[in-house]
Amino acid sequence: MKASFYEGNQTFTVVEKEMEAPASGEVRIKVAYCGVCGTDVHIYHGMMDKRVNIPVTIGHEMSGTVDAIGEGVEGFAVGDKITVRPLDNRGETPADKGHSHIAKALKFIGIDSPGAMQQYWNVPAFTLHKLKEATDLKLAALIEPLSVACHDVRMSELKKGEVAVVLGGGPIGLLVALVAKSKGARVIISEVNEIRIEMAKNMGLEVVNPISTDLVTYVDQETKGGLADVVFEVAGVQASLDVMTEVAGIRGRIIMVAIHGEKKPVDLFKFFWKELGLIGARVYQKEDYEESIQLITENKYNFEKLITGTKPLDQIQQLFEDIDKNPTGMKFLIDCQ
Amino acid sequence: MKASFYEGNQTFTVVEKEMEAPASGEVRIKVAYCGVCGTDVHIYHGMMDKRVNIPVTIGHEMSGTVDAIGEGVEGFAVGDKITVRPLDNRGETPADKGHSHIAKALKFIGIDSPGAMQQYWNVPAFTLHKLKEATDLKLAALIEPLSVACHDVRMSELKKGEVAVVLGGGPIGLLVALVAKSKGARVIISEVNEIRIEMAKNMGLEVVNPISTDLVTYVDQETKGGLADVVFEVAGVQASLDVMTEVAGIRGRIIMVAIHGEKKPVDLFKFFWKELGLIGARVYQKEDYEESIQLITENKYNFEKLITGTKPLDQIQQLFEDIDKNPTGMKFLIDCQ
Repeated sequence: MKASFYEGNQTFTVVEKEMEAPASGEVRIKVAYCGVCGTDVHIYHGMMDKRVNIPVTIGHEMSGTVDAIGEGVEGFAVGDKITVRPLDNRGETPADKGHSHIAKALKFIGIDSPGAMQQYWNVPAFTLHKLKEATDLKLAALIEPLSVACHDVRMSELKKGEVAVVLGGGPIGLLVALVAKSKGARVIISEVNEIRIEMAKNMGLEVVNPISTDLVTYVDQETKGGLADVVFEVAGVQASLDVMTEVAGIRGRIIMVAIHGEKKPVDLFKFFWKELGLIGARVYQKEDYEESIQLITENKYNFEKLITGTKPLDQIQQLFEDIDKNPTGMKFLIDCQ
Repeated sequence: MKASFYEGNQTFTVVEKEMEAPASGEVRIKVAYCGVCGTDVHIYHGMMDKRVNIPVTIGHEMSGTVDAIGEGVEGFAVGDKITVRPLDNRGETPADKGHSHIAKALKFIGIDSPGAMQQYWNVPAFTLHKLKEATDLKLAALIEPLSVACHDVRMSELKKGEVAVVLGGGPIGLLVALVAKSKGARVIISEVNEIRIEMAKNMGLEVVNPISTDLVTYVDQETKGGLADVVFEVAGVQASLDVMTEVAGIRGRIIMVAIHGEKKPVDLFKFFWKELGLIGARVYQKEDYEESIQLITENKYNFEKLITGTKPLDQIQQLFEDIDKNPTGMKFLIDCQ
């Protein structure tokens, strides 16, 4: 079997290795597709060399079929289409208060342990979600990032008829916007990049370019002063932090999706004055995966438009180089078949 | 009747004026006691000269009795003991989404319109809460600030058996701690001032001085790593903002009670990582007043200990000067009788 390895220094190798039998409680997966996450690009850029155990096979946005079943595993058959929820919460303690998806000792499979950018992948059976036989495995590689969006929206408690503003129209921003739309909300994306704006419009989404249109004025007018019920901060820039407290209406909920690596100025007075809520949202829970699988299965939103390009596993190095050259690209997949 | 007026320039006058009949929908109150809020001290210091209409009678933490009843007012009789919820929400619009206590056009009675630091006070009848005949009117002047604490705790959804950390042991901090305790939570106050620490201990509260004891380590040990379920940020200083995201456990709720006048650095990564919530809490709603009145009526917590001093209305100037000289004092009352 072929497996790719991140070797440090912006370098991947692809090598032949022995296929391993699944251990007790594990399943061996024949990987179909593996998407490239922003985190994978961070790893490629060496930003996470302290966390990953080089050389390491990365990748966690995947689809595939069950190839072999370890001892004690029930409910799966060889050939079943599946995807993996890559959270290993076996280190959970009572101090995690039941929130196992963000347990202190959580291991993220594909970062803290080997990932899916290989032909065959052994994972604990508890990470599997079964897919319908008719599922398109290329689309199914989007289930993991779409589950992030489902989690973000679920945490926001967004309701039908509410107004949601999504700050940032990258891959996660678009997915958040589509999930928010599926709840019956009016969704307004704020994005500055024209290519991304076209992409979002092409998916039937409403987009404002805050460089040419004042976002707060626009939302204020559109909502007769009510402003946004929910704001998703996905962009990770100071301008978004500045606008999030302005564009949120009374008791607005701001969902912190972006990763802000350092402390940044926030208008806490606005939190007090409008009784705003800020809610951190990280990864996903079982029900988010189930919702995401449902959305991918129905595919009402033409998720295939989000797939910018696909390359075979052999060309993983070229793919990561391409991603760097195409910063407005959306989702790139590795074909591991 | 006598009325005090803030004249600007850290000066109050007390003058004789004509008593006014209550207008339609209003009640005239014979004021018993009026507490001095931090906001009143701000006004005295000239910090709110742009907002208040000088010369102005201020004051909103009051108790009294019904003295005269305007046309159309039902449900009150002369002599009824009452307190006032000083929120005039008559400018509410649909854009306020039903949150009338923080409506955009909200007028705060005692700041935006005349207040209670006078012998008789005319207010809209809808602001009144009736008190039991046996109520101690001195204690009843604490109902308004205690309602703030009831609102803060209600917004936190604090439950029995949870752990709450209160950052700041001033008057509102102590009231928040007492209300949190009344919910059956374990409450830990963080306060640096030794006089305030003694005060809190004297009221049966657990206090940590973060200068001598590392707060996060202490809470971590006491909770076996679970850390705080709820954090109340009442201190309004950067050190509190720095510690609030550290001392909150997974999915901890941080209640923003303090007023931070400018943007300040916040560790947003911790919000993402631990799925923390930040909830702004401002003033109170009807149910908070009802809870506060109940707590004052029962007086299980010896609220009288919070009253540092009382002076007659004539000596209002002296009282504000005394407050400046006694920064660790808790609650000062004006006797308007």
